[in-house]
Amino acid sequence: MKVRTKDIARIANVSTATVSRVLNGSPNVSEKTRQKVLMAIESLDYTPDLFAKNLAKKRYWEIGIGCTDEVFRGIESRDYQFYLKVIEGIQKYFSRKKCNFTIFSVDSKNLEENIKGKQGFLLVGGGVTKKTIDFFQSIGKPVVLVDQYIYGYEIDCVVSNGFYGEYKLIKYFLDKGYRSIAYLFDTATHFSYEQRRLGYEKAMYEKGYTPLVYPFNEKSNMLEITKRILEEHPEVEAIATCEDRVALKVIECLKALGKRVPDDVGVMGFDDIESAETSDPALTTVNVFKEEMGSLAAKRLFDLLNNEDIRPTQISLFTNIVIRDSVKL
Amino acid sequence: MKVRTKDIARIANVSTATVSRVLNGSPNVSEKTRQKVLMAIESLDYTPDLFAKNLAKKRYWEIGIGCTDEVFRGIESRDYQFYLKVIEGIQKYFSRKKCNFTIFSVDSKNLEENIKGKQGFLLVGGGVTKKTIDFFQSIGKPVVLVDQYIYGYEIDCVVSNGFYGEYKLIKYFLDKGYRSIAYLFDTATHFSYEQRRLGYEKAMYEKGYTPLVYPFNEKSNMLEITKRILEEHPEVEAIATCEDRVALKVIECLKALGKRVPDDVGVMGFDDIESAETSDPALTTVNVFKEEMGSLAAKRLFDLLNNEDIRPTQISLFTNIVIRDSVKL
Repeated sequence: MKVRTKDIARIANVSTATVSRVLNGSPNVSEKTRQKVLMAIESLDYTPDLFAKNLAKKRYWEIGIGCTDEVFRGIESRDYQFYLKVIEGIQKYFSRKKCNFTIFSVDSKNLEENIKGKQGFLLVGGGVTKKTIDFFQSIGKPVVLVDQYIYGYEIDCVVSNGFYGEYKLIKYFLDKGYRSIAYLFDTATHFSYEQRRLGYEKAMYEKGYTPLVYPFNEKSNMLEITKRILEEHPEVEAIATCEDRVALKVIECLKALGKRVPDDVGVMGFDDIESAETSDPALTTVNVFKEEMGSLAAKRLFDLLNNEDIRPTQISLFTNIVIRDSVKL
Repeated sequence: MKVRTKDIARIANVSTATVSRVLNGSPNVSEKTRQKVLMAIESLDYTPDLFAKNLAKKRYWEIGIGCTDEVFRGIESRDYQFYLKVIEGIQKYFSRKKCNFTIFSVDSKNLEENIKGKQGFLLVGGGVTKKTIDFFQSIGKPVVLVDQYIYGYEIDCVVSNGFYGEYKLIKYFLDKGYRSIAYLFDTATHFSYEQRRLGYEKAMYEKGYTPLVYPFNEKSNMLEITKRILEEHPEVEAIATCEDRVALKVIECLKALGKRVPDDVGVMGFDDIESAETSDPALTTVNVFKEEMGSLAAKRLFDLLNNEDIRPTQISLFTNIVIRDSVKL
């Protein structure tokens, strides 16, 4: 069915001249009239090539969702549903917007193949590297990092406010009379880890206590480190950690060392993953709004695709403390 | 003119039953059909009270823009157009969305009068206090802070990424061989000032240099402090400051002390205000995207008004270094 300007004018209840003005992007049209005409056009499924520019904002996009291998491993694990929920948030948003999306591995060797035909990208995972960011920035298409940021880049990203959450959690227990809380810090270049450590340190400094930070990496023996904390600082009342998975390991280590949690030593996590609620004892932690992190990132990418010349921003979602049983009250 | 379901159905080219489903918010309607129906309704200016809920997203809002007295003083000054531009960004966004807005002082005694009839608020200024935030949070309407955040609050805010900008500026000169850069830090509770200082410190630490932070407040004598820096640290090659207005004062002070800028001592600002370009020498500084800060905050408030249950976020705009003549290259 061929729709003509006359039909649009009739539906929008304006003159055909007004319809032409709108289609040609003339400034001499009130915003209300412009909207009426655009809506009439849409209600008729009228998309003339000549005026496609004016309707570009309604386009459907081809999105690439690049994930690190860590994200894929996380999705497969029943206990750790962090990124699964982030990706659910992304999918829900794009489904609503009728965008097509493809999930692929940024660590894959077929990257060139995976990015073909995509108009914008989300890069998901705290382990996204500089190399990956450099590659995607060089393509020249909109990119949003999800749960990652690396200093030195001006790039759109959506992260959780780990600084605020960790600060609030530690302050909560210091206000209750705790004096000696150690911190297990993963030295991997996840933006979150550093932010959470800084929040811990701020809370400790504010009360006049010296932070006790124990760094570790993927090669570290957690049992050794837990033992070392207790030997070097027998006064330690609780061990805070950079994430729930580490906290759950520390609980195991403490039990192996003959300590009761929380009676002898408390343990705190971060993320509020699936198994935090069902662990023994149930984990005191900080909740990251994972699905909303995904949908915010998707919304940001959508905005970038629809509007040029937007300056990059870092969007940081506030987090909530969750008090359960792994730290004595 | 009374419009009936039949008219809507005809224009949207769907059945009257489908129109009813859309108006009643039934989930058994595809997004595309729903949009067609909503557009047909809008093109007819049809707004039945019963279904007003479904059209709520198209509402025009009454917005209150609360500014600190500092912001009003800034607007009146020809040299310092920081907040004037922020407010221009806000005004442009709301004008486009046909929202009504009123600017008022948050330091006014008639606050109750000023907030009457408003549905959402922007609170503008790095000097917005806890007391002000508490008051506006107690009203229970959407609020977005502009250029301010205070630790401990979960509140929507839009700020500039001072950490990143100051880090980048200081790193730029350290990479060029600078070794001793002092920092003038305003201790007022502006979120920006603390972030900028932290960025300075990170850049210094990374190179193995000890930060030289000189705190001051509104009562401080800048000439005295400048003198003290030069006496205590004659090796200082440049003085970085928390904002352009302070940098311009320091240049005056250095001149009064018989020093040449940049030959004897360099000076760096932050903000890139109107007079940074015309000062003698022209100021090396960091540009804050002021108008975009305003429009981002307005957009965020608009999103909050149109969607319930959104979690608060901190949106931080990246900043750009601007190299001029006040620091030797």
